[in-house]
Amino acid sequence: MIPVEQILHPDWVLPIEPAGEVLTGHSIAIDQGRIAAIEPRQALESRHQAAAVKELPGQVIMPGLINAHTHAAMTLLRGYADDLPLMTWLESHIWPAEQAHVGEAFVRDGSALAVLEMLRGGITCFNDMYFFPETTAAVAAEAGMRATVGMILIDFPTPYASGPEAYFEKGEALHAQWANDPLIDTTMAPHAPYTVSEPHLVRAAELAERHGRRLHMHIHETLGEIDASVEKTGSRPLMRLDALGLVGPQLLAVHMTHLDERERDRISATGAHVIHCPEANLKLASGICPIADLAARGVGLALGTDGAASNNNLDILGEMRTAAMLAKGASLDATALPAHQALEIATLGGARAIGRDQEIGSLVVGKAADLVSLDLNTPEADPLHDVASQVVYACGREAVRDVWIAGRHVLKAREPVTLDVPAIRARAAEWRDKLQR
Amino acid sequence: MIPVEQILHPDWVLPIEPAGEVLTGHSIAIDQGRIAAIEPRQALESRHQAAAVKELPGQVIMPGLINAHTHAAMTLLRGYADDLPLMTWLESHIWPAEQAHVGEAFVRDGSALAVLEMLRGGITCFNDMYFFPETTAAVAAEAGMRATVGMILIDFPTPYASGPEAYFEKGEALHAQWANDPLIDTTMAPHAPYTVSEPHLVRAAELAERHGRRLHMHIHETLGEIDASVEKTGSRPLMRLDALGLVGPQLLAVHMTHLDERERDRISATGAHVIHCPEANLKLASGICPIADLAARGVGLALGTDGAASNNNLDILGEMRTAAMLAKGASLDATALPAHQALEIATLGGARAIGRDQEIGSLVVGKAADLVSLDLNTPEADPLHDVASQVVYACGREAVRDVWIAGRHVLKAREPVTLDVPAIRARAAEWRDKLQR
Repeated sequence: MIPVEQILHPDWVLPIEPAGEVLTGHSIAIDQGRIAAIEPRQALESRHQAAAVKELPGQVIMPGLINAHTHAAMTLLRGYADDLPLMTWLESHIWPAEQAHVGEAFVRDGSALAVLEMLRGGITCFNDMYFFPETTAAVAAEAGMRATVGMILIDFPTPYASGPEAYFEKGEALHAQWANDPLIDTTMAPHAPYTVSEPHLVRAAELAERHGRRLHMHIHETLGEIDASVEKTGSRPLMRLDALGLVGPQLLAVHMTHLDERERDRISATGAHVIHCPEANLKLASGICPIADLAARGVGLALGTDGAASNNNLDILGEMRTAAMLAKGASLDATALPAHQALEIATLGGARAIGRDQEIGSLVVGKAADLVSLDLNTPEADPLHDVASQVVYACGREAVRDVWIAGRHVLKAREPVTLDVPAIRARAAEWRDKLQR
Repeated sequence: MIPVEQILHPDWVLPIEPAGEVLTGHSIAIDQGRIAAIEPRQALESRHQAAAVKELPGQVIMPGLINAHTHAAMTLLRGYADDLPLMTWLESHIWPAEQAHVGEAFVRDGSALAVLEMLRGGITCFNDMYFFPETTAAVAAEAGMRATVGMILIDFPTPYASGPEAYFEKGEALHAQWANDPLIDTTMAPHAPYTVSEPHLVRAAELAERHGRRLHMHIHETLGEIDASVEKTGSRPLMRLDALGLVGPQLLAVHMTHLDERERDRISATGAHVIHCPEANLKLASGICPIADLAARGVGLALGTDGAASNNNLDILGEMRTAAMLAKGASLDATALPAHQALEIATLGGARAIGRDQEIGSLVVGKAADLVSLDLNTPEADPLHDVASQVVYACGREAVRDVWIAGRHVLKAREPVTLDVPAIRARAAEWRDKLQR
């Protein structure tokens, strides 16, 4: 008998690899934070002995969801300003609030609330871009959550850094601090081509290359941004980045709501990743990323929530459902982004984008045990004709029951184990009062 | 002191009328199934004495949601066939399954599952179109749920009726049976202009007029339907119906995903109601109803889920969120369908559409006490900057805690009071086995 730490007995497993598979009556053995076996129950039980055994009747286990674009701390601005034109929203509400309030405490408290919400929604890893990334990283690490945090870079001074040199300095320290951490990874995260000058973009890209890190950037979020670039430089932003040598497999291009034929070709040819944030793009009236076409061209896709100020939740199950429906509606093809493909971009696609697919994103022996269980034993999932369809189209994130990250059981029957929930919520309420003043 | 049956003390009330109002610290008195008072807590308590008093800390009360277009019994086909082109989906999957299985038992069991799901999602009234409507009406009435059921009419024979005469006969009986019922109302529900011939459409409209009933019909769901009509008759369906005198305030035009300028003018000028089913339209790649433009023209709007086979849930809170985001995304205007307007179309808009707004749809003294409470005391609604925004953009239907219909407490802490949940779910599982055979 092989000794393992835990054995889980769900009714179904959606391993994501091989694609489209639904395993019935399979169990999962976990040891030292990794998946030790996925086999039919009897076979697995006959060869493994576990210290802890958990029955999960009516539940499906799948890889933890990956939120591939977020500004975690902005959770404190959820519902702070809605239904406004993008520039009014930013210039009259979000930026002044950030200018007045964003500091280490804001980022600590906002990130903690985000981690709480994401764990309850089955998200086991997020890819963040915000000020004070070292604080967000510390909050995630303390919660036992996986995160990739970006060295933020923007041309103007903020409460976080006095100017480009300060951003780079802090960024270098961030990379050094979290190098080789089991849970935390880093990226270079220049905000956008319109807020970061070309020399700084190039320097960020060089740093990314030197550290073997991704380049995480908002690109083509709005038509206005594209028009302004054309007016100023004669080129659309993506082509400008391409000319600078920045479009390649290390690029995480977030939003991409407006893409011409040549741009789609370049993304596909270079292996750049596209992070699709369907709900934020709809809510801010930015446009719709043509993911059905991008998927057909073999572009790597992942899903992000964006910040809670523009969404207003950090719910990748919800984004997956919206992405699957919107891909069909926008392409006028009801076969676009079927359920299994939607599940893949919400998990393995995210892992590939952030360069962590050797470790997470699918349930394969040897990968980290980042797992989520969903309860399909509810009227909302009745009758259970199709496990994958029910997860994508019928369930909400309230179906999430348990979450494991690197084998650690961090959400038990919807209760977070590693977080002080009352304290996090109390601090959120204090920030509400401060922000409303 | 005025004796009343119940007093509820939520933290907030969204009365919908007056528009945009959020009441803080108000209480609601209920008597004989109606709203007896909505006043600041102290004022209300000083004048009313109740047999039952309920504290609802952290909760908001709003009018029950109205699902203005559904095929309730199709819940049994949830996840039965997805990600397929519309005609393959219908012709190779849904219609054969219906032909083989739809009967009184199917409609009884499917409607019961739908009522269970809808009550748990805060829906207090639904407007149905399906075979065996008398059975759906009986299930709703028995559950204490409000429903408007349609006399279905389609040119071909089905397990329900052998032909047009039989549909009309059964429809007349339906109207007679439920005339003057406190919970159940009826419509004439010819399926669509392409499945019902003109003489039958006219006859259905005459019947609707004679009984003072709505005419509930799928119109302009797809481009294909419009093209076929133009090819066959030289006219687009809506204009054909208009020429027949069918476009008016009694018309509930469902879907309306493709509308030219003249059609928008006619809908606005005639007072026809548009039932928007955003998620089904996306999922089946039918198109997007231009509700931002229709709202600007003053057209009465309501929300529907459509059947669970094409959605795949009966979740009006979710449709409201999708509608609010999609209106912005499709019109490229982030101010389109703001939160309060989204709340209105999900409640009062639905009531107006089905002609029951004298009775339901807003929290006004004298109206029926159809109420839903949502729990905003959750991390997902933190920090509570804006009650309406949080309900529309941040919450899912799992926030629904309690539901009252005509003053009767039908959902208590998410537990249905009037339904035998295990029996309903067991029958759904039996239908899954039958359908999968």
